[in-house]
Amino acid sequence: MTDHEPVPAVAATAEEIATMEIRGAAAIADAAARALATQAEAIDVDDPEAFRASMRAAARTLHETRPTAVSLPNALRYVLQRMNGRTVDELRRGVTSASAAFVDQLDRAQEDLARVGANRLADGDTVMTHCHSTDALACIEEAVDQGKSISAVVKETRPRNQGHITAEQLRDAGVPVTLIVDSAARRYLDEVDHVLVGADSIAADGGVINKIGTSGLAVNARERGVPIMTAAQTIKLHPETLTGHTVEIEMRAEEEVIDPVVRDEIGEIAVENPAFDVTPPRYMDAIVTEHGQFPPESIVTLMRELFGEGAEEPWAEP
Amino acid sequence: MTDHEPVPAVAATAEEIATMEIRGAAAIADAAARALATQAEAIDVDDPEAFRASMRAAARTLHETRPTAVSLPNALRYVLQRMNGRTVDELRRGVTSASAAFVDQLDRAQEDLARVGANRLADGDTVMTHCHSTDALACIEEAVDQGKSISAVVKETRPRNQGHITAEQLRDAGVPVTLIVDSAARRYLDEVDHVLVGADSIAADGGVINKIGTSGLAVNARERGVPIMTAAQTIKLHPETLTGHTVEIEMRAEEEVIDPVVRDEIGEIAVENPAFDVTPPRYMDAIVTEHGQFPPESIVTLMRELFGEGAEEPWAEP
Amino acid sequence: MTDHEPVPAVAATAEEIATMEIRGAAAIADAAARALATQAEAIDVDDPEAFRASMRAAARTLHETRPTAVSLPNALRYVLQRMNGRTVDELRRGVTSASAAFVDQLDRAQEDLARVGANRLADGDTVMTHCHSTDALACIEEAVDQGKSISAVVKETRPRNQGHITAEQLRDAGVPVTLIVDSAARRYLDEVDHVLVGADSIAADGGVINKIGTSGLAVNARERGVPIMTAAQTIKLHPETLTGHTVEIEMRAEEEVIDPVVRDEIGEIAVENPAFDVTPPRYMDAIVTEHGQFPPESIVTLMRELFGEGAEEPWAEP
Amino acid sequence: MTDHEPVPAVAATAEEIATMEIRGAAAIADAAARALATQAEAIDVDDPEAFRASMRAAARTLHETRPTAVSLPNALRYVLQRMNGRTVDELRRGVTSASAAFVDQLDRAQEDLARVGANRLADGDTVMTHCHSTDALACIEEAVDQGKSISAVVKETRPRNQGHITAEQLRDAGVPVTLIVDSAARRYLDEVDHVLVGADSIAADGGVINKIGTSGLAVNARERGVPIMTAAQTIKLHPETLTGHTVEIEMRAEEEVIDPVVRDEIGEIAVENPAFDVTPPRYMDAIVTEHGQFPPESIVTLMRELFGEGAEEPWAEP
Amino acid sequence: MTDHEPVPAVAATAEEIATMEIRGAAAIADAAARALATQAEAIDVDDPEAFRASMRAAARTLHETRPTAVSLPNALRYVLQRMNGRTVDELRRGVTSASAAFVDQLDRAQEDLARVGANRLADGDTVMTHCHSTDALACIEEAVDQGKSISAVVKETRPRNQGHITAEQLRDAGVPVTLIVDSAARRYLDEVDHVLVGADSIAADGGVINKIGTSGLAVNARERGVPIMTAAQTIKLHPETLTGHTVEIEMRAEEEVIDPVVRDEIGEIAVENPAFDVTPPRYMDAIVTEHGQFPPESIVTLMRELFGEGAEEPWAEP
Amino acid sequence: MTDHEPVPAVAATAEEIATMEIRGAAAIADAAARALATQAEAIDVDDPEAFRASMRAAARTLHETRPTAVSLPNALRYVLQRMNGRTVDELRRGVTSASAAFVDQLDRAQEDLARVGANRLADGDTVMTHCHSTDALACIEEAVDQGKSISAVVKETRPRNQGHITAEQLRDAGVPVTLIVDSAARRYLDEVDHVLVGADSIAADGGVINKIGTSGLAVNARERGVPIMTAAQTIKLHPETLTGHTVEIEMRAEEEVIDPVVRDEIGEIAVENPAFDVTPPRYMDAIVTEHGQFPPESIVTLMRELFGEGAEEPWAEP
Repeated sequence: MTDHEPVPAVAATAEEIATMEIRGAAAIADAAARALATQAEAIDVDDPEAFRASMRAAARTLHETRPTAVSLPNALRYVLQRMNGRTVDELRRGVTSASAAFVDQLDRAQEDLARVGANRLADGDTVMTHCHSTDALACIEEAVDQGKSISAVVKETRPRNQGHITAEQLRDAGVPVTLIVDSAARRYLDEVDHVLVGADSIAADGGVINKIGTSGLAVNARERGVPIMTAAQTIKLHPETLTGHTVEIEMRAEEEVIDPVVRDEIGEIAVENPAFDVTPPRYMDAIVTEHGQFPPESIVTLMRELFGEGAEEPWAEP
Repeated sequence: MTDHEPVPAVAATAEEIATMEIRGAAAIADAAARALATQAEAIDVDDPEAFRASMRAAARTLHETRPTAVSLPNALRYVLQRMNGRTVDELRRGVTSASAAFVDQLDRAQEDLARVGANRLADGDTVMTHCHSTDALACIEEAVDQGKSISAVVKETRPRNQGHITAEQLRDAGVPVTLIVDSAARRYLDEVDHVLVGADSIAADGGVINKIGTSGLAVNARERGVPIMTAAQTIKLHPETLTGHTVEIEMRAEEEVIDPVVRDEIGEIAVENPAFDVTPPRYMDAIVTEHGQFPPESIVTLMRELFGEGAEEPWAEP
Repeated sequence: MTDHEPVPAVAATAEEIATMEIRGAAAIADAAARALATQAEAIDVDDPEAFRASMRAAARTLHETRPTAVSLPNALRYVLQRMNGRTVDELRRGVTSASAAFVDQLDRAQEDLARVGANRLADGDTVMTHCHSTDALACIEEAVDQGKSISAVVKETRPRNQGHITAEQLRDAGVPVTLIVDSAARRYLDEVDHVLVGADSIAADGGVINKIGTSGLAVNARERGVPIMTAAQTIKLHPETLTGHTVEIEMRAEEEVIDPVVRDEIGEIAVENPAFDVTPPRYMDAIVTEHGQFPPESIVTLMRELFGEGAEEPWAEP
Repeated sequence: MTDHEPVPAVAATAEEIATMEIRGAAAIADAAARALATQAEAIDVDDPEAFRASMRAAARTLHETRPTAVSLPNALRYVLQRMNGRTVDELRRGVTSASAAFVDQLDRAQEDLARVGANRLADGDTVMTHCHSTDALACIEEAVDQGKSISAVVKETRPRNQGHITAEQLRDAGVPVTLIVDSAARRYLDEVDHVLVGADSIAADGGVINKIGTSGLAVNARERGVPIMTAAQTIKLHPETLTGHTVEIEMRAEEEVIDPVVRDEIGEIAVENPAFDVTPPRYMDAIVTEHGQFPPESIVTLMRELFGEGAEEPWAEP
Repeated sequence: MTDHEPVPAVAATAEEIATMEIRGAAAIADAAARALATQAEAIDVDDPEAFRASMRAAARTLHETRPTAVSLPNALRYVLQRMNGRTVDELRRGVTSASAAFVDQLDRAQEDLARVGANRLADGDTVMTHCHSTDALACIEEAVDQGKSISAVVKETRPRNQGHITAEQLRDAGVPVTLIVDSAARRYLDEVDHVLVGADSIAADGGVINKIGTSGLAVNARERGVPIMTAAQTIKLHPETLTGHTVEIEMRAEEEVIDPVVRDEIGEIAVENPAFDVTPPRYMDAIVTEHGQFPPESIVTLMRELFGEGAEEPWAEP
Repeated sequence: MTDHEPVPAVAATAEEIATMEIRGAAAIADAAARALATQAEAIDVDDPEAFRASMRAAARTLHETRPTAVSLPNALRYVLQRMNGRTVDELRRGVTSASAAFVDQLDRAQEDLARVGANRLADGDTVMTHCHSTDALACIEEAVDQGKSISAVVKETRPRNQGHITAEQLRDAGVPVTLIVDSAARRYLDEVDHVLVGADSIAADGGVINKIGTSGLAVNARERGVPIMTAAQTIKLHPETLTGHTVEIEMRAEEEVIDPVVRDEIGEIAVENPAFDVTPPRYMDAIVTEHGQFPPESIVTLMRELFGEGAEEPWAEP
């Protein structure tokens, strides 16, 4: 193989990501970071530039498997960002140690952020949730493990009712749950101490992209004087937004919203089903990550620290 | 019969209201007002105080049939409020002309308010609706009849999906409809020109009691700079609130929110299903009635004009 | 005596008001209204204009005794406003019946408004108070009499610590009291359901003039999502403000704020001690009166109904 | 002539209004009210309904001369609203006394409102103005006449620079003037005590229609904590808005905005020049009229009192 | 001694801190940083890990003396954070130079931040203060030293009246002082150009923990359009909050609030006396430190730069 | 020459800046950075401290040419900040590589930021502009180059009508332009998707100093729910503000505001013409730079990264 082609192990990982054998944001990021280390160890070149080109090629191969997966480019950016030095040896050490650090942090991330989130909750607090987020739930569960008594008001979260999953998981953790329809949120805000949501991704301008309904909930939480926080591992940060890119909002199938039979009875109507919305930073009190908590207006600093300044494609051929 | 007993026709009306043969806010109010006129015409006494006592007794009989129906006491208050004069003849004329005026206004009310509401809409406007309100829909339909092109974004309005009825009725009126889940409202507010809702009842402090979710929608409409109005006939005004009474919010069956089987699978959780919430006047731009439009902060003036100062029970024995 | 001179009984009342034998807003208003009736009954003239002039003269005499007492001109305005008719008899009847109505309403005012205010409170509510207002306390006491369990967070209300009086009176009514310094209010707003204050006077633009600190409390109550109401009899309404007059804020002695000895130790400093401030209507949810509750933006309507359009001095010589 | 035709004097007035011999809001309103009185005195019929029809016909004739003049229909509404009674005599007296009252109030209106507005200003205050309004200026001049020292910050008010007229008139009244461009307003708000504007018209929902730029100024005045008031005679109230009609905003010539030569140099661009905008009631502290001051949310009450409930065309043939 | 035991000098410092011979946030931090340097110079080991363990042990000894002093762990974190390298020599140099830098910065901190704060003040400004903060006062005094004319409105700051100390100190610096009760703040905000407060500590989410009343003052300052800043040396930053810990608010003795005799007269009431409250970052314009000024939302960046990412106990045994 | 004197090439550059042969923020910054590199290469000393002193002297010479030019000290700070090392060689390399990096970034800055700004715009968007900013226009032009269809609403921007230049430049880029007076902005905000402005300079507290009118526009954009961004190269960042310095606002000639002849006709008035105002960070959504986009509250981090902590004069003699 030429030195610009990824080694077989990388190709294999790429294949597994592409075929969704490897799935889930964390698993993909983990595999990609490991693959880059494998590549770095396998390349046998003397020319630093050739080494770099080979690493970029491997990253490209990995990136092309799932161009919309948010955690995949983050893994690549984290590692490539740390490929510094003058010699191939230095470059290789940069890659392998970055890969190891990334994998290690990723492994502990939910546990670490759960501790941060739990520390924000007090014994006796009632927490309102929206949708289903394992990061958010980990915070509540950690608080319970710390011995705090926590109750929950769970929004059902139409159209897919992920609130039911949240309710079940909290119920299993011994948390008393009250289930409500989404529209009842403002009324119950007077009875809760915190709103706690996850994130699909987080933008450089501090906007939190999360399940549709989060932004309207955040506006009402502010109006009612209730603090609201987002729990999100840093693989949810979206470095493309550093360069102004906006996050495209997925439109999902209308069948999630209305039964086709009922729809036919109504007559010809349009149904729109956006999956997410954007909560401006001024309506969010804190973003809880495995690196600690941040006001949304400061998350850009963490994003740059972890993933660089956002050159649009660090794996692109120059 | 003694002069304090209602005449048979009143008793018959009371029976029909009690058995729900007469139903619907407008029908009940209409029947009650007519019954008072019948009573006034039938009483044959010379003593003005005896006349008054007899009228109050009739009103009590009617009121007791459905103590929670909001339009019934309004009809009674409107008529009794206008039973003024020194002689039995004057008192009788007061009652019969008030009854006639009330019945007449009631008959034209939706048509009249629809014209007011329609005048607030411009050709090409998109209107967002919540729940299903015939008063609100009448405004849109009148606008269409005026030749304006109107589109609608219809919230499905969990848990009972009355948005489907709204969608169908608008669709039948030739209005292009886009159906969304309740949580998508803030996102679509950027694309609408007005939010238009009905009311279950309206309080003296300007609060609008309407389907759960209205208040959260109103807060977001203000945040997004979109005007919001309530369409409500004056039989929805709630004169008991003049004396500080708050409106009790009905809690409905949890089966509306979640299928019992799913609930059992989740484990033991509470489900709360409040039917309504209260939108403070500062988040509502106008209340549209058959007597014209009012800022919510001024509706108390109309309430006092129509129904008096809110003595707690004008039909009570002194 | 000429027909423009007040009868001896009026002069006697004026004297008693001037010497503060009659004191307190309600007592003064009561005496003034009664005195006008006495004058009306005593005047023996045929010319309606002479009657009017005589009544104005009596009102002037009464008004000059305590030009800054807010309830006194209200009594005069209420009665003179109802001196209508073409004949002396009609004018006299207007005055005497207005006087009787005013005195009667005044007598029941606190009891009536207490019922309105109490109706706004729910069983289990915690109420925050500022300063000491018998109207505000009457609302809480009536709620307790209705069988509701009410707790109170009482601000001490520097510099004169009227909160101590409030605390004692509530304590005597069986209300559990927590006393805090004024600066702790925002923190405790998260634990209260209502803020309840009285008023020194109320302006036509809806501004509530009350003990210094009310406006800052109201701004924070809004920010924390806690409703705030003012309890005030209508003799606190300030019809002079209908014509744009602003209410002068009394500056009180600096000794109330700091001990002169301590002050001397500090060195030469200024001490300012304004007694009241003005809460804009947009930060007040309701004004509770004996005529029911009103959004502050509508109180002007009640003010005009009771006291006329605010011609600057209805007792002035034309 | 038939009894449905206006008498010659009315026709003459109509002609003078149509040919703009009579011009200006107040002059037109005055002439219209007087013409109705002339008509009432001239009609010689016995049938009350014929009298009414004749008055409506006269009103129609007057109304058709300038259908967009805002003060003209107000004069007609005010008078026709008071044409009550059972006999022709009573009807005639209703018209003539209403006409006289209207003319009398109109004559004193600016003087009366100036006193109200002036009372809101304190000695030493600085007032910011927008555009040129004789009602607003009358308030400042009255304050100066009361002996108060007033300064002014005058916005030039593009595109027609009416601020220059305001500056000159204030200068002549001895008021120190600082002229600024419109964009400098927010900066100077920190140095002013009041913002004072006039109105083109005022809507039932409390919206103030005034020179373009008023609403943006009001939003900033609120943000900076500066009170803002509108000075407007009640002939500026717009009863058509009671029934939900919105006020059409005039688009003026683009030459006011940009010199055609400069425009040609720029290339093909659109120029838009709306004359007015609408300030929502929540950004306006008070509306100052000859009947006193009102929170904008209450102006609807005054509008209904003066001009009725807003039946769309009281002069229309039934 | 084993290499894990602190050297005698460290033990001595620990003793002096524990016995409060060394007291005050700055003095404690200074002593702790110096003690770590002493320890680093005294340890005679070859194994880098043994060196590290020894340093952690010394830090533990120091930390245990006053676990709640906020500046003490900051000194330890600052120094331990900079103990980097592969050899004992490198580690030792890291500690000693960090210790020296910390001590040096601490020494100049108040002077440096005073210059920053003073630069924000303009000649002729009036400043409102709350409580007594030497950092805040240093800013005003520096402004005076720069030749600016500054006036002050000083809140007395119940319950302990630290405003009296502030008033005296400003008076001594030649600043004209007006003393007011806390409740008068909103009224006087219209007359001040800045609000200036100190801080007890500052959290990672930008919240400012300061004397009770600060948050209510900040909300009102924003509402009145007055900028507000916090002056605080970086030893007030609270790195534990990086990991979500909330700052415990001390409850102080009720005797500070009310004389026990008066309290007995009132009857059995509760008295609550929280020492501090939390001002959310959105109500604070700037935090002024010796490293320059920061928007509160960015202080987390400085906190991480100085004290690391907030591993919960950098001195803990691994 | 002594080693503390700038080399002739630096003196020449200084002369060209002083005589305005070199002009424009970017050109001055470029020349200054290059001159420092020239100086570094030319100095022939062995003593590192002598090298540093020589560099500071060169920087002083350059700085004194135009002490108010904002980009000049930024170039000096950027380079001097990176003059690190122990040997003269290291110091020299620090200077020359910093100079090269600065010059390189400056060269690409507008292009880079344009891409960031353009990424925030979507196909079909309408953008409102204020004044004329090449950075802001570059964003729109880049969006057009990306194939997006963009329209513009251009405020004329009194008093100097720079909006005409903006209109022409956009027109030339094929962007449909609607020109409005400044006061019409709030009305047209309902029709635009973004507000886009440039900056004169940006302060450490996140305040954006820009053409007078920007802050009032930003307040209205927030009120109407329209996002607003600032496009500004980092040479606009103002590191002096790190230490609390406020940015002095230039007062320009009154002839820009009013023709002297017209002014004389008006009478003696003051005219004030501030060139800029300050928009607080809470009203700005993003600052777009060549290093990516930032919430205004985080720009301090970039400022410190590029230009250091803001020691007041890094070129001053110690």
